Amino acid sequence: MNTGDRIRAERDGETFEGVVLPSSTTDNLVLKLDSGYNVGIDRAETTTTVLEADAYDVGGDDDDTETSEIEFEDDLPTISLISTGGTIASTVDYRTGAVTAQFDAEDILRAVPELAGMANYRGRVVANILSENMRPSVWQDLADAVHEEIEAGADGIVVMHGTDTMQFTASALSFMLETPVPIVFTGSQRSADRPSSDNVMNAVCSVEAAMSDCAEVLVCMHAGESDETCALHRGTRVRKNHTSRRDAFETVGAQPLGEVDYESRTVTFRREYTERGQVDLAIQPALEGDVSLLKYTPGMDREMLDLAGNSEGLVLEGTGLGHVHSDWIEDIAEFVDDGTHVVMTSQCLDGRVCDRVYDTGRDLLDAGVIEGEDMLPGTAKVKLMWALANADDVDATMQEPLAGELTERSTPRQ
Amino acid sequence: MNTGDRIRAERDGETFEGVVLPSSTTDNLVLKLDSGYNVGIDRAETTTTVLEADAYDVGGDDDDTETSEIEFEDDLPTISLISTGGTIASTVDYRTGAVTAQFDAEDILRAVPELAGMANYRGRVVANILSENMRPSVWQDLADAVHEEIEAGADGIVVMHGTDTMQFTASALSFMLETPVPIVFTGSQRSADRPSSDNVMNAVCSVEAAMSDCAEVLVCMHAGESDETCALHRGTRVRKNHTSRRDAFETVGAQPLGEVDYESRTVTFRREYTERGQVDLAIQPALEGDVSLLKYTPGMDREMLDLAGNSEGLVLEGTGLGHVHSDWIEDIAEFVDDGTHVVMTSQCLDGRVCDRVYDTGRDLLDAGVIEGEDMLPGTAKVKLMWALANADDVDATMQEPLAGELTERSTPRQ
Repeated sequence: MNTGDRIRAERDGETFEGVVLPSSTTDNLVLKLDSGYNVGIDRAETTTTVLEADAYDVGGDDDDTETSEIEFEDDLPTISLISTGGTIASTVDYRTGAVTAQFDAEDILRAVPELAGMANYRGRVVANILSENMRPSVWQDLADAVHEEIEAGADGIVVMHGTDTMQFTASALSFMLETPVPIVFTGSQRSADRPSSDNVMNAVCSVEAAMSDCAEVLVCMHAGESDETCALHRGTRVRKNHTSRRDAFETVGAQPLGEVDYESRTVTFRREYTERGQVDLAIQPALEGDVSLLKYTPGMDREMLDLAGNSEGLVLEGTGLGHVHSDWIEDIAEFVDDGTHVVMTSQCLDGRVCDRVYDTGRDLLDAGVIEGEDMLPGTAKVKLMWALANADDVDATMQEPLAGELTERSTPRQ
Repeated sequence: MNTGDRIRAERDGETFEGVVLPSSTTDNLVLKLDSGYNVGIDRAETTTTVLEADAYDVGGDDDDTETSEIEFEDDLPTISLISTGGTIASTVDYRTGAVTAQFDAEDILRAVPELAGMANYRGRVVANILSENMRPSVWQDLADAVHEEIEAGADGIVVMHGTDTMQFTASALSFMLETPVPIVFTGSQRSADRPSSDNVMNAVCSVEAAMSDCAEVLVCMHAGESDETCALHRGTRVRKNHTSRRDAFETVGAQPLGEVDYESRTVTFRREYTERGQVDLAIQPALEGDVSLLKYTPGMDREMLDLAGNSEGLVLEGTGLGHVHSDWIEDIAEFVDDGTHVVMTSQCLDGRVCDRVYDTGRDLLDAGVIEGEDMLPGTAKVKLMWALANADDVDATMQEPLAGELTERSTPRQ
């Protein structure tokens, strides 16, 4: 029995039929079921029967330690798969129970045989880190890699990324790159050995989105609890809103930009988007690192403000329409006078900052604070890092929509 | 024409019929329409006709600068209205356009004539501040005032509070007080002079909730875009999730505990709650002030951690299941060794922290970090302030449900 064989496995009276996937330990058998789910089974208690050798031809050989070789087909588009690490590129270490990043892009192809035949693939590893360890320098490496892949002729990019900080990296690339092809981030909320792993469907739908007409930075993840559709979110408007659900990612303040139907492989969009080829490839990867994001809470130590404000840029995550304690305003005015660019966002997440309604807000505007409109606080931080390094007029740039991160001023609700 | 008169007002061909409300300027006429909405009209351009003098008898006299005197009726429950400030207790200064807190509890009764006849009222002003300026010492003053009102025989408490930090104050009272009667927080997202003001409906529904059988700390605000129902949220699970919508408040991770139907004045509950009289009145208002909440974002300056961690308590708002950059873990271990209690929550807001899945999380647990379960980060900060001042075993207390702030461990999703 080898990786790629279709087998029947029986254990404790239960029967599973599926294709053998690579496993990080000899004790464990990982099967891809026909439902698309993967299941991990303890080999020791399992009887197996090979039904069909090499059921998926993904270019793999019978020895599952070798790298696969995949032939290019001229009539298929070329998708560049870039791995940065995270659960989608990881396996469970069964000795410790922990999940560890392990696969490179070629391995992903072998772990997700469904990708075979959809496109020609180029594989590339930019990093191999869990995304809580992601840092601005890796955003830059990734932007460079994406830029090179597009220059080399890729028709679309899929970035495999940990889910924890995917929204920050997707925002960074949204500002750094102008792209004539789709750049689609995807990840996995459940590792491949779990019955409910979302890695296959997310990967397949991401490749579909990368072949679509939407030349924007997108995040492609499960749209609901079922395995029917993946949602396509703008990289600057998306947020991981649940710690563990597969449909954790949500576009804040709107419906997702589009979706991919898993069964029919149909990509549909709800709103206007930048079309393939509409803009020329360009990159501006410079970032100012000295930018803080500070969330205000009652009783907060003002020393936190003094540390965070002593920087090139400060994003405040205020309360309600964009407020902090009135006592802070004097300090903020001093920071602005000293050259710090201070942007106000709201911890409400949904809705628009408006500092013209209440005294506190008006005083903040007088102090020189820039209203962050309806930008998510994390996106505003990334944008401020980018604007400080690339924009002539930072304040004006922060209020100008560049990549869907803020919507034009809407009529205030009555 | 006096406050309380029912009038017809014509301006620019439009006709309004309603009851004259107190206004903070002579230039402006504020009418309560039959729809429940208030409208502000420039007197200069308006022709008025009095239809009925003193249409609401709320004990007011013809001079709207005097304080009303309200007679107690023996067969009605007594509700204590405690004002802390905020939009619900404010008027617009038409010269500057800003909203300023102004009313005391008696004024609220006159501004919301619909409250008359529902209950006997005791009025009390604890503070007069916009809630971004709320601070832990005012939480304590408020808890003392509520305690005194209940001791004095109040059958329920309504706290008028600014919406920006209502969730923090409601959490604080949830931990400080054991209560035999309902304690209902309410506020207003739109000031009384705006056509869509929510102050009347929120106030009326709050009084209904304060007369109900649910002896918990609740937040009562609009449940949807219409004027049909107010939702009743547990004070420890609620979050202001929109900057401006009237239905900005949401219970995170569940449906609200209950609701009040505005028209029928019916209060219904969806789940179990602590019933009226079930527990005896008790107060533990002590708080440890030296507690920080720190939201982790990629590229964050580690000096922020060093400042925030050098304290009695630190709530981390991590990514995903509860992570920060691996480089931080060594520092966190040192803070724990030095006596800082460190609690991990998630910026996802929804879902449960679980630091046993990934290496980062396991290292955080080894460093002595306490999993904040499914507590909201803001609630966890308030609870940690309270636990440090009142609990024998702070770490165990942080993982024990005291006031609905965390739910018992659920079966992990597959």
